[in-house]
Amino acid sequence: MAKRVLVTGLNGFIGRHARAPLEARGFDVIGVGRGEPPEDVRGKIAWRHADLLLPGAAKALIDSVRPTHLLHFAWYAEHQKYWRSPQNTAWVRATLELVQAFHDAQGARCVLAGSCAEYDWRHELLSEYATPRIPHTPFGRSKNALFEALDAYAEVSGLSYAWGRIFFVYGPAEHPGRLVAHVIRKLLRGERAATSPGTQRRDFTHVEDIAAAFAALLDSAVAGPINIASGEARPVRDIIELAGELAGRPELLDIGALPLPPTEPACLAADVRRMREELGYQPRIGLREGLARVIDSYRASPA
Amino acid sequence: MAKRVLVTGLNGFIGRHARAPLEARGFDVIGVGRGEPPEDVRGKIAWRHADLLLPGAAKALIDSVRPTHLLHFAWYAEHQKYWRSPQNTAWVRATLELVQAFHDAQGARCVLAGSCAEYDWRHELLSEYATPRIPHTPFGRSKNALFEALDAYAEVSGLSYAWGRIFFVYGPAEHPGRLVAHVIRKLLRGERAATSPGTQRRDFTHVEDIAAAFAALLDSAVAGPINIASGEARPVRDIIELAGELAGRPELLDIGALPLPPTEPACLAADVRRMREELGYQPRIGLREGLARVIDSYRASPA
Repeated sequence: MAKRVLVTGLNGFIGRHARAPLEARGFDVIGVGRGEPPEDVRGKIAWRHADLLLPGAAKALIDSVRPTHLLHFAWYAEHQKYWRSPQNTAWVRATLELVQAFHDAQGARCVLAGSCAEYDWRHELLSEYATPRIPHTPFGRSKNALFEALDAYAEVSGLSYAWGRIFFVYGPAEHPGRLVAHVIRKLLRGERAATSPGTQRRDFTHVEDIAAAFAALLDSAVAGPINIASGEARPVRDIIELAGELAGRPELLDIGALPLPPTEPACLAADVRRMREELGYQPRIGLREGLARVIDSYRASPA
Repeated sequence: MAKRVLVTGLNGFIGRHARAPLEARGFDVIGVGRGEPPEDVRGKIAWRHADLLLPGAAKALIDSVRPTHLLHFAWYAEHQKYWRSPQNTAWVRATLELVQAFHDAQGARCVLAGSCAEYDWRHELLSEYATPRIPHTPFGRSKNALFEALDAYAEVSGLSYAWGRIFFVYGPAEHPGRLVAHVIRKLLRGERAATSPGTQRRDFTHVEDIAAAFAALLDSAVAGPINIASGEARPVRDIIELAGELAGRPELLDIGALPLPPTEPACLAADVRRMREELGYQPRIGLREGLARVIDSYRASPA
């Protein structure tokens, strides 16, 4: 059977890395978005224009494309603002319309992007089935609401689906306000990079590994929630220091100059046993190599 | 300001009792449904035809009616089947479309029907903020998902909303497969009424009290989740015995002839402090009077 995947958010931070691993697995890739396709895929993949937030648009799109597979990354992702935006609710609704239309049109398999923000962050090791889902932000609550609705839907409809919970991601072309991008850009400009003490432990994964894991997940029969992360929660300080070393400007780091907000959890670690054992996926880009690639990308095209 | 309420599910078991208390509070009532309005309100209230499950229909309806208030009872309610139907997911989506369109059109206040099935039924006293929301059925999970999405939406959008969690309801014209209707109809036909031992404790509330509480809730500023129930959890056996006495045929009862399914919780009691103290509502129809009314309704029009 020809595998024909509709990918939403293909022009986003993670989505733009999904085409290569999907094509390597034999998928025909069809992108969708409000605007033009990203430059690097223009003319190389099929592209549909649609605003999925308009009620009825998702159903019309599915009925026209008739994909066998659906990979849904699209969401409201404006840096910082996404934590508390009503747009989260619009995406819950639009995603439900998309998935129901997909299933009604005999779609075979869909995979969606969830978030570690669905978990109760008072826990340090976040596991798919053991950790309570008590999110504390409107973004996390919206993702959790969507997960709850979809998981119940899959149970009664027979939909084959998985929900990849993304932890902390870094990579080329990320928003300059995000930690890794911020620090590296400062260093490469020869500016002082002020950070928190970085004592908090986080699981940072390179964006290409995230995208490749989603492609593997789509191509599998793994069902339900699954953490997508490196499996290694390190003190953020280590990441900052490694970035300083690799950029050749460790002396510009001013670690501890900024306070750590009191609401920041001490540790958010991903339990990745499902990913390793059931999906059989193992991220390939270590932190040293991943950070080096980010530095190279900024050196190649300073923004 | 004129109060103009759009009511969904006005032709349903609870909704049909909502018109009177809403009008008593000065609301202009507009009903909506796929079919004709219920006979008793035909020609007496404004009525719109719409299938809210069609993507885009809810938004079109809101933009045309421009209600100041929204009271949303509509849901998939087919007896027994509703516990495990994919239609629950369709209603999550349709409700999100409805509420977002309502808020976008400057609607002032909306109230929606939740369910005690959202709670973790391993607890006996179910409280809005203390009891975990860990539902065990697709219906309960869908209602819980909708609540989570809406509560997060209200937090960031400023929507004034309340979510009335309904417990066990009885009254005239309920589905004949439901406990109270089943027992009373058997007794009035002179047939043996076989039931479980009835040791499980449940909060049963008369449908008119439920509808009146929702009208009060719509007319208030109480926000978020609120249990709507009598506040009295009795052994189901008491209800059955009272029905036997009031119907004048206690000898037809065969209590204990049927097993209680092992999955039935021993007790599901509603914490109604919010309803009593914050909403200031107190149900008025006691069980004796309520059951007598049901018996009268069947005697008046045996089905």
